[in-house]
Amino acid sequence: MGGDNAPDEIVKGCLEALETDGFEIELLGDRARIEECLGKENINNPRLIITETSDEITNMDKPTEAIKNKPNSSIVVGMNKIKAQSAQAFISAGSTGALLAGSLLIAGRIKGVSRPALAPVVPSIKGHTMIIDAGMNTQIKPINYVQFGIMGSEYMKNMHGIESPRVGLVNVGTEESKGNEALKQAYEILKKANINFIGNVEGRDITEGKVDVAVCDGFTGNAMLKIMEGTGKYFMDYLKKMYSNSLWGRISYMLVKHELKKLKKEVDPEELGGTPILGVNGMIYKCHGNSRSKAIKNTILKACSSACTTVLDQLRNIFACMDIGGIYDKAL
Amino acid sequence: MGGDNAPDEIVKGCLEALETDGFEIELLGDRARIEECLGKENINNPRLIITETSDEITNMDKPTEAIKNKPNSSIVVGMNKIKAQSAQAFISAGSTGALLAGSLLIAGRIKGVSRPALAPVVPSIKGHTMIIDAGMNTQIKPINYVQFGIMGSEYMKNMHGIESPRVGLVNVGTEESKGNEALKQAYEILKKANINFIGNVEGRDITEGKVDVAVCDGFTGNAMLKIMEGTGKYFMDYLKKMYSNSLWGRISYMLVKHELKKLKKEVDPEELGGTPILGVNGMIYKCHGNSRSKAIKNTILKACSSACTTVLDQLRNIFACMDIGGIYDKAL
Repeated sequence: MGGDNAPDEIVKGCLEALETDGFEIELLGDRARIEECLGKENINNPRLIITETSDEITNMDKPTEAIKNKPNSSIVVGMNKIKAQSAQAFISAGSTGALLAGSLLIAGRIKGVSRPALAPVVPSIKGHTMIIDAGMNTQIKPINYVQFGIMGSEYMKNMHGIESPRVGLVNVGTEESKGNEALKQAYEILKKANINFIGNVEGRDITEGKVDVAVCDGFTGNAMLKIMEGTGKYFMDYLKKMYSNSLWGRISYMLVKHELKKLKKEVDPEELGGTPILGVNGMIYKCHGNSRSKAIKNTILKACSSACTTVLDQLRNIFACMDIGGIYDKAL
Repeated sequence: MGGDNAPDEIVKGCLEALETDGFEIELLGDRARIEECLGKENINNPRLIITETSDEITNMDKPTEAIKNKPNSSIVVGMNKIKAQSAQAFISAGSTGALLAGSLLIAGRIKGVSRPALAPVVPSIKGHTMIIDAGMNTQIKPINYVQFGIMGSEYMKNMHGIESPRVGLVNVGTEESKGNEALKQAYEILKKANINFIGNVEGRDITEGKVDVAVCDGFTGNAMLKIMEGTGKYFMDYLKKMYSNSLWGRISYMLVKHELKKLKKEVDPEELGGTPILGVNGMIYKCHGNSRSKAIKNTILKACSSACTTVLDQLRNIFACMDIGGIYDKAL
């Protein structure tokens, strides 16, 4: 029931996802409205279960209070299913604040993880790069950067098949001495962590694909992500206008249509799908509030893939075995 | 003598700028090498003065030490000319650290300005937006955000002819309650400042031209600027490849060549020219280390325009008359 286009686009996205085999979907929300969206032909699909939820969390609700006071909302019911392991992944396009609060309060952090993080994967010239954190923690300690690096590295290994993901620390320059004290300390611990740490990186390195996991605080990550989306829109809008404004433009478009569609697909946030919340006990994905069916479909497929990997168990093992008492512990 | 392509491209840029009337250029550096770049036909140009400097500041030098120990470097000599008001503007493509240190230590802050800032102007769908700060201050107080807003507003008024520049505070959401304590306090003071404060903004608002002055800490601004450049490069590289890869691509290019050149010009950092350092006693512009003649030319013209406005005097007046003892003072 979350997001601007629920339940219509959510249900549509589910039906599109169900064209792929290997999973079941449980829809949480207003049964009557969901059934209406499903239509008679899909109402009895054995891979679709509907669970009625009656509470509604809006963007006006205070996240923590909403989680406490609206136990029968789709977010709370979904998180409880993650906790009980009766669901292997949970997706919502609803209130980001409530989703994050629910992840922490109900699903809970992986033992040893100090701060979970939002970890969108963005396009680069060479493939994809993860930005972690992109908005969950606006003020963090050195150890958080390190944990983000470890979590991001495991996710990119499992989900993008990168054998040894290059982890970089976002900074105002590539020299080791750059940045504030927290960043300098993070740099020192990252060097010793069991990941492929390549040092400080800048925004350009993300789009050029010189790094697979770009570690930063949530404020910086959020700002980068949004201006990246904005810059993408700037170019796509310019091209759209250029190709539609004149006859020559329309002819020009026809000649490179295939490549332009490829570009559009590469940079379309709906194609990339939702953002995982890493560091919590479950595969939880956040979708944009304005998600349409394509975004929902792609997020469902991504969530299913991630639930099929052992990334969650690996993270649990890594953080359980972490060098407690060593340099890592001192920085906590 | 600063930058990767000095003095060749610097001198070339000066000669290109001199095609426009109304100013003189004083070149600071190695006279013999400069004269060689100028060539016989330009050596006696009455609008070009050469002043010999013998010290060289590199990126390896510690900025503050370099300013103290290399008094005859182009940066120190230039700053002293700004201080003595024998130059109305100073431009350098040399060590950013030394340029910033020189601005603070020699030209000095405008009375009442707590922290000067780097303030690049970037393209938006509707024109241009200033990002202030983009790298000079990585950790700041609420009052700094407010001063950045005031300085940016005056600059955009004078240099871009915007009557009442819309000033926004970069945050992780547009709601007033977003961000850390410093941002919340900054929000409160900005509301009361004598500028057109429009509230919190996000990266998208910058590229969409919904804000004229985007205020942020230098770490966030630097990260946004660099990923924006990187994203621009991503698109331009894709288009370049698309148009050159096949015969159809080359024909397609010919049909929209004019619009594509316009786009290239709009997003070309060399066209936009250097970045002003606002809040210091003088019009000082920083150019990219890799600047070519076009960037130098455009920065010279921009610096001349700004020196012809009264923006510096206006800033001096504003900060001299600032509400000392009021809400503004308490937040210092």
